[in-house]
Amino acid sequence: MRIDVLSIFPNMFNGPMGESIVGKAIEKGVLDMHITDFRKYSTNKHHNVDDYPFGGGAGMLLQAQPILDAFAATQAAAKQADYSSGRVILLDPAGKQFNQRAAEDLATADHLTFICGHYEGYDERIKTVVTDEYSMGDFILTGGELPAMTIIDATARLLPGVLGNQESAPGDSFSTGLLEYPQYTRPADFRGMKVPDVLISGNHQKIAEWQQKEALRKTLLRRPELIDYQKLTAEQKRLLAQVKMEENPDPDYD
Amino acid sequence: MRIDVLSIFPNMFNGPMGESIVGKAIEKGVLDMHITDFRKYSTNKHHNVDDYPFGGGAGMLLQAQPILDAFAATQAAAKQADYSSGRVILLDPAGKQFNQRAAEDLATADHLTFICGHYEGYDERIKTVVTDEYSMGDFILTGGELPAMTIIDATARLLPGVLGNQESAPGDSFSTGLLEYPQYTRPADFRGMKVPDVLISGNHQKIAEWQQKEALRKTLLRRPELIDYQKLTAEQKRLLAQVKMEENPDPDYD
Repeated sequence: MRIDVLSIFPNMFNGPMGESIVGKAIEKGVLDMHITDFRKYSTNKHHNVDDYPFGGGAGMLLQAQPILDAFAATQAAAKQADYSSGRVILLDPAGKQFNQRAAEDLATADHLTFICGHYEGYDERIKTVVTDEYSMGDFILTGGELPAMTIIDATARLLPGVLGNQESAPGDSFSTGLLEYPQYTRPADFRGMKVPDVLISGNHQKIAEWQQKEALRKTLLRRPELIDYQKLTAEQKRLLAQVKMEENPDPDYD
Repeated sequence: MRIDVLSIFPNMFNGPMGESIVGKAIEKGVLDMHITDFRKYSTNKHHNVDDYPFGGGAGMLLQAQPILDAFAATQAAAKQADYSSGRVILLDPAGKQFNQRAAEDLATADHLTFICGHYEGYDERIKTVVTDEYSMGDFILTGGELPAMTIIDATARLLPGVLGNQESAPGDSFSTGLLEYPQYTRPADFRGMKVPDVLISGNHQKIAEWQQKEALRKTLLRRPELIDYQKLTAEQKRLLAQVKMEENPDPDYD
């Protein structure tokens, strides 16, 4: 996969994209990453990239010219390297909420371009090249760089050959539809805080039951809307009933 | 405000936290940021920080010891500098969805500590020091570093004296309850793509009406649940009715 990022803060990407899973994907040749400072494409003699909004209003907007010209250059380079034009992602709080399904979808593309806004916003005309608008949620950031890196991280770990067995993710939150059960590692007694007995019992059936029950408990308490009762196994339904009793022993509990 | 971050990938923070608004807040002395590599606190002779989960399962978990000892050290340093113990934030997909209200809440604290998980997860016992668990949404990342940086960015920009007037945010998405209207900057005609006539008309009343109408249109089309009809002004109700007609001229439209 090729990833292009258009940003006026290219240095922001140095740390996050060199370390961890994304760095590994680049090392393995699974990911070909290009960060482009679109300020370099400004035709303005001072290399300005922003200007006042038409109609007034506070703040400065990114102009269309530097972004669209930088985009044309990365598209040409990608084409020469036999990549398709791919998906063009704009980070915007008005975009669709990014989620695991979106990551799985993006992971199937051969080429992703991320356009990172900054300041008060951007000229609407850059959207003529955008295929997808994503948001990280209902909050305001100073730019699209951190959401772009977040989407890249979530997507890169799904590319074939990136995660080793050590890190493979069968029990991950959302892959089972439930939140993850609490986990413990050594020592069994850490400064008086003990691991639940069942986990060191060696009884694999009991351990599996405990894990399933605690996943159901956490999901019920924090994200009940994630529990699709129709899709639970008979065993899960039995455990969920137990959890409900334990969490609210009041007989009037509905 | 003091911010402590506990991470085994401290280099990930170099780029993002040096540039943009966070770098500016640090420069201005509004933000005192400390990144701590908790691997250095491991009492294991190889400085390992992870081990196999009790009860089996794929992947490795972060152990409690290095994180809790690093935390004790940062708390002691903060106390010496007259900060309170503050809020201790764990980044976890099972946490509460981070949003603008959470950013506003965190911005009132004098001290924030972020604990960044990695690999398959962490020993549940680290939660004994955690005050808040936040998630970026329903997707899986390789670690908590990018969400921590995202929360820091959203919070830092709310600290007094950080945003200049140039970047102040009266029309930001979510601060008005509506998504932002489309914005345009120079040139008025960019390669045949023209700015809406009204924005260059000089008629301030018409411009304000257009902006309000387009904010309502975008919100209606993308995030209708954000429109609180009771809170709209009479003018906004009139504009919203127009938008509904324009978007769906079918007379049966409800």
